[in-house]
Amino acid sequence: MTQPLAVTFTAGPGGDWRIERITAVAGESLPVATHLSLGNEMPDQGQSCWRLRGVVSHTRYTTAGELKRLNAASPPLGRPEALCAALIPIRKSPAWWSMAQDERRAVFEERSGHIAKSMPYLPAIARRLHHARDLGEPFDFLTWFEYAPEHADAFERLVAELRASEEWRHVEREVDIRLRRVAR
Amino acid sequence: MTQPLAVTFTAGPGGDWRIERITAVAGESLPVATHLSLGNEMPDQGQSCWRLRGVVSHTRYTTAGELKRLNAASPPLGRPEALCAALIPIRKSPAWWSMAQDERRAVFEERSGHIAKSMPYLPAIARRLHHARDLGEPFDFLTWFEYAPEHADAFERLVAELRASEEWRHVEREVDIRLRRVAR
Repeated sequence: MTQPLAVTFTAGPGGDWRIERITAVAGESLPVATHLSLGNEMPDQGQSCWRLRGVVSHTRYTTAGELKRLNAASPPLGRPEALCAALIPIRKSPAWWSMAQDERRAVFEERSGHIAKSMPYLPAIARRLHHARDLGEPFDFLTWFEYAPEHADAFERLVAELRASEEWRHVEREVDIRLRRVAR
Repeated sequence: MTQPLAVTFTAGPGGDWRIERITAVAGESLPVATHLSLGNEMPDQGQSCWRLRGVVSHTRYTTAGELKRLNAASPPLGRPEALCAALIPIRKSPAWWSMAQDERRAVFEERSGHIAKSMPYLPAIARRLHHARDLGEPFDFLTWFEYAPEHADAFERLVAELRASEEWRHVEREVDIRLRRVAR
């Protein structure tokens, strides 16, 4: 990851992923749509229901030791067996963003175990984080997950563990979008 | 700072600041222009020579203790006596961005003293950092400084100290633009 990668998620009548459900976990939901596409700088065809932009960029809290373990454990996107996906856009509170780096890191990992709790799930669940806050978007982060149907229960446990953490008290808006890959 | 603030620097035939000189410190320079304007989401009138976009956003390395001291020492922008300004756009190397957070922090402060060296100058020199990397801009950071003519020497010392630090070995492009406020 030497250059940031701009990614647009477009919900509309067509796309590689069929939307199974959209759930508002905290705050306002997103409009109902049937399909989702991922692309880099995709032009809007005028048919989209909603679009969310983010940037895959450098890590913000991860230490060198954690990064090494994460990279070793993380599968790539696009595995043939990963027919399930989730897009979870999140916005954190103004109080979160007014904290200094060491305070945010302490909540994120030392007190919430964000990385430690995610690590056991990584061989099964592929994950890519997109930063959106500095783009003026309605969410701060868009996290994209891909997994095989047999790991759907594991994914539910991961999401439940993170939502029960201290870090999640700072989440003021969260939408959970579940998807199935369209047969090719 | 609860919401990121988008700022556009526009060089062209008019603006609140007259450009005295543009110096390439590392890598490619920027085209010659006579004036610079700062604005939020300014439309391009078609007369601009170049435009650089950035976002004033949350701090990335500063600890809570450092942030408290920085906030206490930092003057606001727009002081009547601050007739001099500098805009210093910087791009860091791919190697910098591939480091983990703790490695970048160690170079930034523990080994280079970026905050510690800047602190003594802060009562005289106002400073605002704009993040640009995730916007797909040619620079990673745009730092804007304002100071009174009597503090011009102090500003040169600050810039020289930072450029001599280990952190600056990771700077692969740097342009130094010096400005004078246009009489109102």
